[in-house]
Amino acid sequence: MKKVCVIMGSDSDLPVVKKAVDTLKELSIPYEAHIFSAHRTPEEARDFALSARESGFGAIIAAAGMAAHLAGAIAANTTLPVVGIPMKSSALDGIDALLSTVQMPSGIPVATVAIGGAVNAALLCAEILAVEDETLAKKLDERRQHARQAVLEKDASLQVSL
Amino acid sequence: MKKVCVIMGSDSDLPVVKKAVDTLKELSIPYEAHIFSAHRTPEEARDFALSARESGFGAIIAAAGMAAHLAGAIAANTTLPVVGIPMKSSALDGIDALLSTVQMPSGIPVATVAIGGAVNAALLCAEILAVEDETLAKKLDERRQHARQAVLEKDASLQVSL
Amino acid sequence: MKKVCVIMGSDSDLPVVKKAVDTLKELSIPYEAHIFSAHRTPEEARDFALSARESGFGAIIAAAGMAAHLAGAIAANTTLPVVGIPMKSSALDGIDALLSTVQMPSGIPVATVAIGGAVNAALLCAEILAVEDETLAKKLDERRQHARQAVLEKDASLQVSL
Amino acid sequence: MKKVCVIMGSDSDLPVVKKAVDTLKELSIPYEAHIFSAHRTPEEARDFALSARESGFGAIIAAAGMAAHLAGAIAANTTLPVVGIPMKSSALDGIDALLSTVQMPSGIPVATVAIGGAVNAALLCAEILAVEDETLAKKLDERRQHARQAVLEKDASLQVSL
Amino acid sequence: MKKVCVIMGSDSDLPVVKKAVDTLKELSIPYEAHIFSAHRTPEEARDFALSARESGFGAIIAAAGMAAHLAGAIAANTTLPVVGIPMKSSALDGIDALLSTVQMPSGIPVATVAIGGAVNAALLCAEILAVEDETLAKKLDERRQHARQAVLEKDASLQVSL
Amino acid sequence: MKKVCVIMGSDSDLPVVKKAVDTLKELSIPYEAHIFSAHRTPEEARDFALSARESGFGAIIAAAGMAAHLAGAIAANTTLPVVGIPMKSSALDGIDALLSTVQMPSGIPVATVAIGGAVNAALLCAEILAVEDETLAKKLDERRQHARQAVLEKDASLQVSL
Amino acid sequence: MKKVCVIMGSDSDLPVVKKAVDTLKELSIPYEAHIFSAHRTPEEARDFALSARESGFGAIIAAAGMAAHLAGAIAANTTLPVVGIPMKSSALDGIDALLSTVQMPSGIPVATVAIGGAVNAALLCAEILAVEDETLAKKLDERRQHARQAVLEKDASLQVSL
Amino acid sequence: MKKVCVIMGSDSDLPVVKKAVDTLKELSIPYEAHIFSAHRTPEEARDFALSARESGFGAIIAAAGMAAHLAGAIAANTTLPVVGIPMKSSALDGIDALLSTVQMPSGIPVATVAIGGAVNAALLCAEILAVEDETLAKKLDERRQHARQAVLEKDASLQVSL
Repeated sequence: MKKVCVIMGSDSDLPVVKKAVDTLKELSIPYEAHIFSAHRTPEEARDFALSARESGFGAIIAAAGMAAHLAGAIAANTTLPVVGIPMKSSALDGIDALLSTVQMPSGIPVATVAIGGAVNAALLCAEILAVEDETLAKKLDERRQHARQAVLEKDASLQVSL
Repeated sequence: MKKVCVIMGSDSDLPVVKKAVDTLKELSIPYEAHIFSAHRTPEEARDFALSARESGFGAIIAAAGMAAHLAGAIAANTTLPVVGIPMKSSALDGIDALLSTVQMPSGIPVATVAIGGAVNAALLCAEILAVEDETLAKKLDERRQHARQAVLEKDASLQVSL
Repeated sequence: MKKVCVIMGSDSDLPVVKKAVDTLKELSIPYEAHIFSAHRTPEEARDFALSARESGFGAIIAAAGMAAHLAGAIAANTTLPVVGIPMKSSALDGIDALLSTVQMPSGIPVATVAIGGAVNAALLCAEILAVEDETLAKKLDERRQHARQAVLEKDASLQVSL
Repeated sequence: MKKVCVIMGSDSDLPVVKKAVDTLKELSIPYEAHIFSAHRTPEEARDFALSARESGFGAIIAAAGMAAHLAGAIAANTTLPVVGIPMKSSALDGIDALLSTVQMPSGIPVATVAIGGAVNAALLCAEILAVEDETLAKKLDERRQHARQAVLEKDASLQVSL
Repeated sequence: MKKVCVIMGSDSDLPVVKKAVDTLKELSIPYEAHIFSAHRTPEEARDFALSARESGFGAIIAAAGMAAHLAGAIAANTTLPVVGIPMKSSALDGIDALLSTVQMPSGIPVATVAIGGAVNAALLCAEILAVEDETLAKKLDERRQHARQAVLEKDASLQVSL
Repeated sequence: MKKVCVIMGSDSDLPVVKKAVDTLKELSIPYEAHIFSAHRTPEEARDFALSARESGFGAIIAAAGMAAHLAGAIAANTTLPVVGIPMKSSALDGIDALLSTVQMPSGIPVATVAIGGAVNAALLCAEILAVEDETLAKKLDERRQHARQAVLEKDASLQVSL
Repeated sequence: MKKVCVIMGSDSDLPVVKKAVDTLKELSIPYEAHIFSAHRTPEEARDFALSARESGFGAIIAAAGMAAHLAGAIAANTTLPVVGIPMKSSALDGIDALLSTVQMPSGIPVATVAIGGAVNAALLCAEILAVEDETLAKKLDERRQHARQAVLEKDASLQVSL
Repeated sequence: MKKVCVIMGSDSDLPVVKKAVDTLKELSIPYEAHIFSAHRTPEEARDFALSARESGFGAIIAAAGMAAHLAGAIAANTTLPVVGIPMKSSALDGIDALLSTVQMPSGIPVATVAIGGAVNAALLCAEILAVEDETLAKKLDERRQHARQAVLEKDASLQVSL
């Protein structure tokens, strides 16, 4: 199976980004994780992106806050699908990162998920890899069934408790 | 090649969504286009989503404005990648559609592109299909080269005109 | 009397939604409460909505956060009045849920109350049921009188304390 | 059948509010329409609200822009359901009217619809009146069927035109 | 000297509004303080406003949060200057109260100060009363001098500490 | 009677600010009008403010757009009441000017009116001057009566036309 | 004198960016202008930035809209001062470009001017070059004097016309 | 070397502004720090600005919150580069200060950095001084190398820890 690369712009993003890693693990999707900064290590970010396809990656997650250029900087250098996670930082509640990630100009898409949406970023990569992988698609369907079951059980509990 | 389905919530979205269709055509990606409304034809939207994978689709684009639930409603019923295009409507400049599309809860991702970002929605689907399709990947790389070339030519013209 | 159904998208909404339940109890309005998710249990949400009128419900409250589609998804499947409570979540202070709930397209209304406005959601349902129920209307008028009295007493206390 | 009162804060709101009136007519719901201003004719607004229930009204629509207090001012003086339409004005794209209408304090609900959502305001009143009126409920269901049919026809046309 | 009335929509506003009262005391301006709600005690708010001028008031401060109609409701019933303090509440950081207070329609002004700006509300009333009161004007000038002096002393300290 | 000074930051503000001038004329309030810029003519703005009280002014209106510092810059140099009109400019719909005008720090109030609210700025000055001027107060009350009458007439017309 | 480079992300930015060029010309500051895209020509943007100082540039202006990464991408590859102009595009009124430009992470500053603020971008570069260039500093002072004079003349005209 | 002046509008800004001072110290750039308020000590702010160039300053940092006029007030009185730091205050998350600082009218630029971006404000001043100072330019390049190295080391650690 192709790998997913999970990139974060700063190690302070790790507690949130960890959930993407955990979700990939849960689905047995091979991954790498890196700290690359669009601004502090632009060469490393670029070099990674330029060779990502031939390095065996099938999708890339990029998490960054504030003027969140990381996903766009990666996307500028690869035609692999790039998933952007806007991170909430000390001001503006993440709206800066959301707009910096999602409002990409025509030609260079970034697949943006919710502010702090690390689990969904991983699931989106899984969905991408599952397009041609029936086993993974089945796993995703089962995960949905479990989520559904969990809601139904909580509803059942509510009938008792309320 | 797997098909892409381009869904819009209203025929008033067509002028923008047309650019997604044109981009898919340009890349010779097979597609279908539909008008389904999350609120006015919820059954059709759901039935489409439930059978989309076995109908041969590899990715789905959903464009909607205001309280833009279409992409999320599709995503709730398939584990295929769903790309959401938030549409600008008569008030609020599209921020309502953007937040309604991107802020999906954990478990059900929508790959959101810019407000009105129809070309990028199509390119994102192309990138998704290209993960396992070298020919399409090469086409995407070439498209990038043309875009790059176009910028360089405009820069060259600027040197003359300014 | 017709029942009110109080639906929340997640059990994490319960502490706020509880106030709607308590207000219905206070007014002796029969109710049911459920956890249904527009995205994780779309079938259950739909099936509930489709049969809500014949199940004896007169109004439905739906509370959800982020890309809050729950109220709209319910409203798409019933012509009973649906009251939406936008919930504040970890980012964006509830503005995402507010816009996702209130900006419904023409044809499918959602009666939206304030962010976290669970008491008002319940009162709105009571007002709806009271249109044809004089006893309940009188209860609502009395509740207003008590609220008025409480303000007047606080004003009287203020004259002493300040 | 109980009547609906459609109130607007200014005659400049009429082009939008007219759609609420037309929708009520379409559903054969008796109505009155008034121009009352929360700020310029507070007495008239109040007197109307205080006697609305005994005047035979079952629901009230209030449309206003900017610091849109009209719906709240009406709601403060009646326990009939009050539906607020936030109107877009020359600045701020209607977000001022939306927040002024929807963010009501606990105790006095306003059922808020989308910015400029006049059709939905009328439909919401119809849904409220239909709680105890099967004929009207049936009409609303039929209207939904027509809306559904219209979308399906547009989708069919699209298959031909695209 | 004419009195200032300090009105708050809820006793929960008291900790902030207290600063307005303290500032009036500091300037020896006679005042009254009241809890009146635009929505829960509309009659009391109106009656107060209608008779405020003949009761000897020269300016009115109204503090309220969320859909903050209090200042506007008072202003609708008096031509005395009304100063509005938008209060921050549990969601939206006060922007709802700010827009509900400041965006008044033509004809009924509210003199709006910053979110939570209780001291400035009192100073504004003092400035209004000082237009025809040289002693008070002099006090305000002296207060400015003290504020200026305080900044200069802090600057001097900074030169030592840094 | 004391005069009102109407200051605008740029002659492009004149079409809106003209309405403030017209309202003052209508009420026979003596006025001056000036173009002073907080940034381009800071000395003139300051000198005006420092001598405004002894020049016979009773209130000052300052209209400015973008980072609208004019009202605050005037207010920093006088303890006369300063009324700020935030002006809408080519971007951001006036929210920049609104926040720059209203969010003044403690100690220096600016009485802010709605975006583009020139009429209300003039009325607020009139209300300030009317605190000690019964004739002007009466004029303001009459103006309110006319406004009320105008609404009532429009409501009467509506009964015929609709 | 060191040169200024004016970079725009797209030739559609030229009408606004032209004002920066004209201001540099007016001040006889040598300049170059380029169209480089952070996303479509990342190599050219990078290569320019890496060699900008040794190419004789003293400051760089970068204008871009939407998820405006251009200024940040340049700044990541040079320690010359980079001035960012956020450009208004078809949605969101420029707030996306503003936040994407100004909210840079610690370590890589971008000197951001107003949305569409091309003249100020050029003046800021002039101010930077003038730190060690008395002649240019004098020119800037004279420009300020002219601007001041222009305001004073408009104020004088106003005294006649109003 | 020319000095940098770090001005804050209030001593409550010191904890954030301290980081600007520390960064200047780290780079051995001579500096002064002051507390000047655009509103409470307008004369001192103006006098400082008018004489700043001849006092040997090469750049000025101004930090202020709310209706943050400080940077603009300084910039109005000097043609030295002025760097504005918008400060987050008790409401609105700093967006008020950001817009009040960045949206300067044509003619008077303020080089705005991120909300609370004190380190970048200092680095921007360093970049400005480094235009004609190779030693300082080299120091800035080295600082970038250290930042790059720090990211690389964190990435290396991540490979071990994850």
